[in-house]
Amino acid sequence: MKTVFSETHTLRDAKTELYGGELVYPFERPSRMTYILDRLKAVDPGPILPPGDHGLAPILRIHDAGLVDFLQTAWDEWQAEGYEGEAIATCWPARRMTQRRPDHIDGKLGYYALATETSLTPGTWDAAYGSAQVALTAADLIRAGERSAFALCRPPGHHAAFDMYGGYCFLNNAAIAAQRFLDNGAARVAILDVDFHHGNGTQDIFYDRSDVLFLSLHGEPENAFPHFLGYADETGTGAGEGFTVNHPMPPGTPFSEWRRSLDAALDRIAQYAPDHLIVSLGVDTFETDPISFFKLKSPDFTTYGGDIARLGLPTLFVMEGGYDIAEIGLNTVNVIEGFLGAA
Amino acid sequence: MKTVFSETHTLRDAKTELYGGELVYPFERPSRMTYILDRLKAVDPGPILPPGDHGLAPILRIHDAGLVDFLQTAWDEWQAEGYEGEAIATCWPARRMTQRRPDHIDGKLGYYALATETSLTPGTWDAAYGSAQVALTAADLIRAGERSAFALCRPPGHHAAFDMYGGYCFLNNAAIAAQRFLDNGAARVAILDVDFHHGNGTQDIFYDRSDVLFLSLHGEPENAFPHFLGYADETGTGAGEGFTVNHPMPPGTPFSEWRRSLDAALDRIAQYAPDHLIVSLGVDTFETDPISFFKLKSPDFTTYGGDIARLGLPTLFVMEGGYDIAEIGLNTVNVIEGFLGAA
Ligand SMILES: [Zn+2]
Ligand SMILES: [Zn+2]
Repeated sequence: MKTVFSETHTLRDAKTELYGGELVYPFERPSRMTYILDRLKAVDPGPILPPGDHGLAPILRIHDAGLVDFLQTAWDEWQAEGYEGEAIATCWPARRMTQRRPDHIDGKLGYYALATETSLTPGTWDAAYGSAQVALTAADLIRAGERSAFALCRPPGHHAAFDMYGGYCFLNNAAIAAQRFLDNGAARVAILDVDFHHGNGTQDIFYDRSDVLFLSLHGEPENAFPHFLGYADETGTGAGEGFTVNHPMPPGTPFSEWRRSLDAALDRIAQYAPDHLIVSLGVDTFETDPISFFKLKSPDFTTYGGDIARLGLPTLFVMEGGYDIAEIGLNTVNVIEGFLGAA
Repeated sequence: MKTVFSETHTLRDAKTELYGGELVYPFERPSRMTYILDRLKAVDPGPILPPGDHGLAPILRIHDAGLVDFLQTAWDEWQAEGYEGEAIATCWPARRMTQRRPDHIDGKLGYYALATETSLTPGTWDAAYGSAQVALTAADLIRAGERSAFALCRPPGHHAAFDMYGGYCFLNNAAIAAQRFLDNGAARVAILDVDFHHGNGTQDIFYDRSDVLFLSLHGEPENAFPHFLGYADETGTGAGEGFTVNHPMPPGTPFSEWRRSLDAALDRIAQYAPDHLIVSLGVDTFETDPISFFKLKSPDFTTYGGDIARLGLPTLFVMEGGYDIAEIGLNTVNVIEGFLGAA
């Protein structure tokens, strides 16, 4: 399996994450990629390629032009205001408030954000743009006939909605890749999100569409970020009714239970018969992940990689979360190995 | 004019406000009261009285019981989670997300917050409760026949909505006082909000009602907190249509312009013929306020105090914002003096 990767991810190196009422060094940090690359090189499932540049057009197929423009200009506006920290939203359109976009940077931050743990920094846009290019290039490997490919994206994408960033995500790489397939002849794409956190952004983007089946296995929103999406009764709307499938699970969920949800999701994917499968691959389901509460062990990642392979679909893996950094390489590459072993 | 004041306000002494991407010592701090008290004692417009205890019932006439319960328990839940900072929301129900209340403290914070500059701390509830009692006690002075009274409330209240806190506010003291009047025989109450910031909470609480006329003079939401409410075309809904009046004004607005909005507001109040007038008194309209952008000078506060007095209404002043602390005493008491001089 070929991996696509870009060093532009290092341009996203925020110094502050709002966590527990303090500004801490972010859990989502550049060294995550170092550990995954080291493990990839050790296991060597295939070559590691740089992305091409596919421009803004495929990003604008998924995201609001206002958000895309904001991400490119926010840092300069923030600095012009004289603020000394990284750019973090302080208010937002809450219940019964208007959804008009303000002019001031403080207002725009709140308009386009869905969380405050994620600060904007000088290199954020370039890194997010590069991450989307990684996903697009890996999608094109599948389009060119590869059975599978690994988009080693950073920053991650699945929390980024049509017109909102947050949860360490700015552009929804998996969604951008899905649209790439659809715009080039695919009739149906399934996105299976196995990150610990609900893929609220991906759900938001495709909620009223039937050409993308979105399935997510995640920590129940009552107790896990993003807290305000991911309930089992969210099943899509309009033409998309029935094409969103959520499997929320409680604290302490072990692999045996998690795999039951995976089996149900794989059955639904098989029934849908998509042209392509995209896996939003987060490994924060690991038992010692610092911000999550599932109990998967390292060999479980190999096991479920095999489960996914047995669908027999052209499969694009897109990197999402995972914050036990010492083990992120092992767990991520275990999924790849498990897939290849069963493919 | 009698002033009601309680030292319980000192229990609200947060150490952190999220501002410009940093955690700074809050603009809304206990010493604000010291400067106002010093000036009150120097000018001596009347005695300073402690509040009585009117219990939770009048608070629950205005606020969601869930919010009131949350404010009492949030700090303990936050501490139990092991977090080391003050309690600050990190995510919220953003566009197209569900409004269900999560179970985890992180989710509940986002559910009940409308801004992140305002942290929750151990003494916050007791101080907010005490502040509401100050407003209730001062309202009762008016009910007992006083022409005017000054509720020297802290923390302030006008950003607190039915079921949300934020903007340094937890319980809406002005709204609680208005309901006190209505529950004791008044037919109509007008609330005139002259704080620099839009009184989004007060507007929210009374938006569908005609027994409270709400009028706000404030920095335009395009450029000023709370950014997502306070446009001129927000005029009320249902039975409340026409009973919300917003006068947003741009950066740099001088007193001459501001007073034109005040005149229009006073005309509307006279037409409404309320039994009582409540003034949400913030003095962050002052030219050197650190977080605002109007250009009022200290004598202007005296002038508009007189303008308000000439309505000839029983008038309750309820303290809101003001962050140029060195001048907050002068500007606040100027309003009181101006009122008394023209009353
Ligand atoms: Zn995650
Ligand atoms: Zn204010």
